[in-house]
This record gives sequence, C-alpha cells and structure tokens, in this order.
Amino acid sequence: MTEATRIVLASRPDGQPTTDNFRQETVDLPSPSEGELLVRVIWLSLDPYMRGRMDDAKSYAKPVEVDETMEGGAVAEVMESRHPDFKKGQIVTGQFGWCSHAISDGEGVRVIDPDTAPISTALGVLGMPGITGWVGLNDIGRARDGETIVVSAATGAVGGVVGQLAKAKNMRVIGVAGGPEKCDFAVKELGYDVCLDHHAHDAKSLSEAIKKAAPDGVDVYFESVGGKTLEAVLSRMNVGGRIAVCGMIAWYSGEGVKDAQPLPAVWRNILTRRLLVEGFIIFDHFHKFPDFIENVAPMVGDGRVKFKEDVAEGLENAPRAFLDMLDGGNFGKQLVRVGDDP
Amino acid sequence: MTEATRIVLASRPDGQPTTDNFRQETVDLPSPSEGELLVRVIWLSLDPYMRGRMDDAKSYAKPVEVDETMEGGAVAEVMESRHPDFKKGQIVTGQFGWCSHAISDGEGVRVIDPDTAPISTALGVLGMPGITGWVGLNDIGRARDGETIVVSAATGAVGGVVGQLAKAKNMRVIGVAGGPEKCDFAVKELGYDVCLDHHAHDAKSLSEAIKKAAPDGVDVYFESVGGKTLEAVLSRMNVGGRIAVCGMIAWYSGEGVKDAQPLPAVWRNILTRRLLVEGFIIFDHFHKFPDFIENVAPMVGDGRVKFKEDVAEGLENAPRAFLDMLDGGNFGKQLVRVGDDP
Repeated sequence: MTEATRIVLASRPDGQPTTDNFRQETVDLPSPSEGELLVRVIWLSLDPYMRGRMDDAKSYAKPVEVDETMEGGAVAEVMESRHPDFKKGQIVTGQFGWCSHAISDGEGVRVIDPDTAPISTALGVLGMPGITGWVGLNDIGRARDGETIVVSAATGAVGGVVGQLAKAKNMRVIGVAGGPEKCDFAVKELGYDVCLDHHAHDAKSLSEAIKKAAPDGVDVYFESVGGKTLEAVLSRMNVGGRIAVCGMIAWYSGEGVKDAQPLPAVWRNILTRRLLVEGFIIFDHFHKFPDFIENVAPMVGDGRVKFKEDVAEGLENAPRAFLDMLDGGNFGKQLVRVGDDP
Repeated sequence: MTEATRIVLASRPDGQPTTDNFRQETVDLPSPSEGELLVRVIWLSLDPYMRGRMDDAKSYAKPVEVDETMEGGAVAEVMESRHPDFKKGQIVTGQFGWCSHAISDGEGVRVIDPDTAPISTALGVLGMPGITGWVGLNDIGRARDGETIVVSAATGAVGGVVGQLAKAKNMRVIGVAGGPEKCDFAVKELGYDVCLDHHAHDAKSLSEAIKKAAPDGVDVYFESVGGKTLEAVLSRMNVGGRIAVCGMIAWYSGEGVKDAQPLPAVWRNILTRRLLVEGFIIFDHFHKFPDFIENVAPMVGDGRVKFKEDVAEGLENAPRAFLDMLDGGNFGKQLVRVGDDP
C-alpha cells in the first residue's frame, strides 16, 4: 500500500472558483495489478482548460465529477510497473491528476528522455502547450512568412511558443499581455516586435495601439482570451485573415460576457473581411507529436525557443496557484512541484 | 442622344429602407466614345448585397453615393459599340445599374449565348448567385459526399443552387425558409429532404426541429441570414463542422441585433466543436467562372438544377420589389423586366 495525497473537486463553482471548491485527501493506493504501473508525481501542470472541467456543462471533454481527483497532466517517476511498456525508474508523462501518486493503465503515458531537456518541459514547451502553439500557428492559423500576427496571452505557456515560432518564420509579431513586466519579457526575452499591456487599454484604445503596431494590418490572430482583445484585433484584421481559436479565458467564468461585442458586429467582420475562424482542441492533433518534437526540440535545444516556468511549491498549493493563473497572476508556464527530482 | 431612365439613391436609409430612399430620373446619354458601348437593359437583378451599398459604412465595396444610380447586375442588348470586344445585337451581362440604358467601358462585361439557356439565367443560376452557391458549398463549406447540410434562405437565388448541388452530392439537405409555400417548393421541386419554416419557430424550437431533421448532426451550414437560424444551427453542428458565411440578411438593417445570441456562447461553440467559420465574397472567386459554368451549366440544361424567378414588371417597380425582397417577400431569384426581349 502506498499513501497518496490528492486534491478533489469538492463542489462546482458558481462563477469564479474559490479554494472552497477543492479538498485535499489522503488515500491508500493498492499495488498495481497486471498491466498497471504506480507512479510518483514530480511536476503537475496547471492549465486553463481545467476550469472547464469543473463545470457540469457539455463540452469537448467530460467534467470532473464532484469528489473525483482533479484532472491534470504530470511528470512522474515509475515506482513499480506490471506494464510491459514501462519500467521502474523511468520518467514518464501522462494525465495522472492532482495527486502525489497514481495507478495508471499506461494509456496516454509517454516515456521522456531526461537528457534532452529538463523533465518539466514535457509539460510546457515540449508538451501540450508547445504542440498547441505549433499546431495553432501553422495548421489552424495557416501562418506564412512575412505576415503579421497578434498573440494573446503572449507570455503564457502556449502564447510564448506561438510568438517565438512566429518570429522564427520572419513574421511581424505583436503580443498582448497583462502588465508591463510581462510585456517587457515578451519583447526582451521572447523577441516580440511589440507587446501591448491590456491592463492599460479598453477595446477601443487597444485597437488603436494594434493599428500603430501593425501598420500592414493583422493576418493571423492567435486567440486564447476572447473579451476586449478579440474585439480590438477583429477591427484590424486584413482581408483573408485567420483566427485560431484556442481558448477564451476572459469568458470562462461568465464574467465580461455581458460586455462582449454584439455577435452581428463580429459576423459582419467575418463576412466583409473574409475571415477564417477555426476552433481547435489539441487532443485532435496528438498524432502530430513526433513531427512537433522533431521540429521544435532542436529550437529549444539551441535557445531559439525559450521558456519560462512559474513554480508553486507543494501539491497543497495547487488550488491557490490555479486560481491565480486564471486571473493572469502567473508568469510563464504554471507548474506545481509535487515531489523531488529523481 | 438616348433618353435613359434610372433610379438613384435619394437618401441613405435610417434602419429599414423605404421607397423614399429612391428617386427615378430621366437623363440624356451621349453616344459612346471610342472604347465604349451603349446598352439597352432587358433584365435587372435585385440582390441583398445592394442593401449594404445604401449605407455609408466601411464594407468590402464602396457605397453608392447619394444621387448616384443604384448599383446592380443586368442583362442587356448592345445597341451601339465602339469597343473591339462587343458588337451591336449581342446579349451581354454586366454591372449596368438600375437603369434602362447605360454607357459602359466594357469592364466586367461578358457576352452570353442566348441559345444555351434563357438569358435571364445569367443573373441567377448561371450568374453571380449560382457561382456564389457553388463556391460556398465546395470551397468554403468543404462539403463532402454523404454529409448533412443546412441551407438558410433555402429557396433563394443562392440557397436554391446550394441545396440542389448538395443533393447531387448525395448529402442530406435541410432547408430553412420563410413560409409553408417556400418549404413545399424546396422539398417538392428542389429535392430538399426536409425544409423548416422559420416563421413557425423561435431559435429553441428551430434547434429541436433541426435535431429531428438531422439525426447525425450538421456538418455544413450555408449561412446567409444570421439571427435565430444561426443560433439554432450552431447548437446542432458536429465536431469539425464548417459554416460558410455568405450574408446576414436578418441583421442588415440593424433589426434583431439586440436579440442576437451573445458572442461568448458562439465562441464557445466554435471552440468546443472545432468549427471552421469562413466568410466569403464572390468577387474574390470570379476567376472560377469558367469552371463553374463547365460544371453547372449541364446540370441546368438537363434539369438536375432547377431555377425559379420572381419578376417585377418595369424599372419603376424596382424599389418596391427590392424592399419586398429584403423582407423575404420574393419567391425565387428576384428580377425586374426593364425592357423587351430582343
């Protein structure tokens, strides 16, 4: 028996979630059965999609049930394996959830090589956020060399990858982020041409700022926020522009919904500017993982693609860190250090 | 000198246009100069896009100026030509405007063969509405054999083509139209599997009716109306569905805008269902005209693609017929008979 700590969904949030929606528990895990493995979690990833799982609404994935462990990707060490594909001591990544230890049947679990990059990057720049940015830029945004792109949440785990990959394609890259510190980082470290602080703008003045930053208009918008950023960018899109819809964090908790731009105005923009707006969910594109690693891992290796991590210490701090992240309080890929490095 | 009658934009509408926004005038046209031709209009086409030209708003095309002749496509006979590409007696189609006679420099003017089909079809099923439906179905809607499509304005000049071409691709074809007479025509004459009367539904009950009519969900939505039809179809789109945005007639005059579905709900659908929403303007696709004629003219010839025309008699009745059309009062491609057949 292994004692495991886990964080469960205690109740569904009504609007903005609070720490009361989570509860920490201790449980005894049995030994793995035939075909299973036992892992010890080292890094837990916190991501905006988890907010959706807390609601009972129909979405692309099942909600987390009340009293169930919160869903989440993690990097872990194999402690015991009765699964043919894994052996004790390997470092793996998978959807182990918000917990210290887990039993897994190996589905969706991938062995990672700790020698190519820090193991935490399997949750960030070389993991789900990284491939999300890569697919969003190329396959959904249909980005071409020399075009202009606006990237919302520009220093986030996904946005940071989009911006740097766009720069590597010789695009003009304009970020939108919350606060001068993030904007400074976007320009100085990630190579954005310009980064606009949405805290300092309403939709109208943000639109003016984008006009100045993008004298040739905007060809691609990497959209993960909704809200006033969407409204501002829409008014600057070029004919034939593309919007890759990856998320809408500004609207996840129902706030700002009543201030949203009226649909007919958006529809008119789509029509008259002949925009292509496409939503995507990265699960549909996981078969591209080998291609992604082949393309992007070397760029991480030689420093063309940098990454920044924001680490919360200890599983017990995951709920607080998650809520902060939803408010834009993190700076870089949000991780929780659950256990020691091997 | 030739005496010409024309209808000009007398004033810009404030919301819903009225006949007061138009004025009929008589002018003397000079003889054509070198490189020009004089035509006598036989058929004038009335189309929803003309509503947009009456406003001073930024759009994909310049507005008609006050006191200028209303813009419009027409079929005409060449009366006199000093242009090398045209000769007296030919039947041509071009943007001659709401008038009885016009001088043209030949730009955008195309000779049509009166032996292949009635010359009025150059304004409908074998003209701009026809190619709009063909491009919208195939290139924008990315329609595939066996899929399910919903076509708004199902019996309109464009929608009628979309529905019939979709049927020829073995798709399940669901129309939405205004009134039992149109719905009956859609099913009995145009071959729709089902046609729903939007007068008999609000958004919610229309959504239920679509669910019943499309048991496997909706893969393609040919969108030309906006409003409650859009709202109803969005809730039935399959993952990976496509919306070809060709127009938004329900919102052109600002009515119903405040009842529109909130943008965040639409954005959530785009994201979670991974929809592709693409606006298009047929002017961008005119280079496909020869392909379109090659593909669709034989289907018109052998009756696989039928067409219906709604004819107003006399140029003086164009404003009234146009306003009726905006209210859905026409039934089939709206034409005005301006002059006698040759």
